[in-house]
Amino acid sequence: MLTIIGIGPGDRQYLTIEALEALEESEVIVGYTVYAELVQKFIKDKEYYTTPMTQETKRCEWALEKAAKGRRVALVCSGDSGVYGMASLVYELAENFPSVTIRVIPGITAALSGGAVLGAPLTHDFAVISLSDRLTPLERIEKRLRLAAQADLSIVIYNPGGKNRSDYLKKACEWLLEILPADRVCGYVKNIGREGEESHILTLEELKDTPVDMFTTVFIGNSSTKLINGRMVTPRGYRIGGGN
Amino acid sequence: MLTIIGIGPGDRQYLTIEALEALEESEVIVGYTVYAELVQKFIKDKEYYTTPMTQETKRCEWALEKAAKGRRVALVCSGDSGVYGMASLVYELAENFPSVTIRVIPGITAALSGGAVLGAPLTHDFAVISLSDRLTPLERIEKRLRLAAQADLSIVIYNPGGKNRSDYLKKACEWLLEILPADRVCGYVKNIGREGEESHILTLEELKDTPVDMFTTVFIGNSSTKLINGRMVTPRGYRIGGGN
Repeated sequence: MLTIIGIGPGDRQYLTIEALEALEESEVIVGYTVYAELVQKFIKDKEYYTTPMTQETKRCEWALEKAAKGRRVALVCSGDSGVYGMASLVYELAENFPSVTIRVIPGITAALSGGAVLGAPLTHDFAVISLSDRLTPLERIEKRLRLAAQADLSIVIYNPGGKNRSDYLKKACEWLLEILPADRVCGYVKNIGREGEESHILTLEELKDTPVDMFTTVFIGNSSTKLINGRMVTPRGYRIGGGN
Repeated sequence: MLTIIGIGPGDRQYLTIEALEALEESEVIVGYTVYAELVQKFIKDKEYYTTPMTQETKRCEWALEKAAKGRRVALVCSGDSGVYGMASLVYELAENFPSVTIRVIPGITAALSGGAVLGAPLTHDFAVISLSDRLTPLERIEKRLRLAAQADLSIVIYNPGGKNRSDYLKKACEWLLEILPADRVCGYVKNIGREGEESHILTLEELKDTPVDMFTTVFIGNSSTKLINGRMVTPRGYRIGGGN
């Protein structure tokens, strides 16, 4: 049995009860070093196996091998395991491990946890787009950002920065500024739900020159998004269209 | 104090620990009748106030009034309160209740819970779009769907059906079929995490003629999405681009 668990931001309080119970019932916990260490703070006395980033395939194969031998294995991912997480890779690799039962337990992805910190930026239609070009050509990322802006979707940007990608958010903002106004309400959250959490609301023009890292999640508002009492709020339209 | 709580699909196990604790600490629980009744199954001995759908403004104002009088109020929403939920409306209305402290607690939205049931359909970039035209013109919905398809985003459709909107998913599929192939891998989940849960994986052409209701969430794959051992899986690209 292999359970793929989204742990949310990392602290115990952000786990679902289903995720917590699955971790407690597991024998072996597998994950990227940073996230496995977060889990280790509140789930003790388990066998842990961690690999650094770029070792995803090795990590998932190891988890499947252990599960095929009858162990109860939990593979942990930050946020939701189905959003830029390991769930799809496990399903792909599991074709070689037909005996293993796989279960995915959803978790609070950064679009939701970061959105709650900023206010309510995603109350209407939105897109989630990663700026990481490790596995996706940059031209495809550019195309997706441009079309999402044309569609007037709120946009959540995952992986906006990182090693060798320090200017990617600047590039993304430049593309968006060809379509969206410079004063579009935007926001970002660093270290959501963790030590050092900070959040900022600013314009798209200001966002362009903001340094971010891989633990930052960025929010671009849609045409209705506004600043209300220090919060980034995208109305759904109840106050205009009806719903009284 | 007004805490806006996303409860996920509805059963206790899908709550985060943070959400459960906030419900337990509240005095008054406010919500749409259906969801408040789900909460009432596991949070007893509270004062409950419920309103039917289309009474959202009244419900949020009532919650703010109670909170302004010093009560500890929890406003519950299914899924995440920031995704087509009440969070933005509360922030808008709260301008008239400056003394009330507002806190948003994220929850498992249907894109995540439904995705976990189907497999891993959202492991790459995606859009979340509602087909409800109660508060959004249908032309805007059409435009967003078309652009999301052109962007090769996986698409999650919320509110695909309902009273007086029984042909909306058919319309949406017809628009998408002008851009996407008829055999595009799609899926849908009814009553996620509740009694009567059912899920199906099918082609876009087949989806077009599928009857759905307001408790259904629909997933349209991107160009890489495939069926693996009965699961809907959108690869992130680890097996092609690198990451070994």
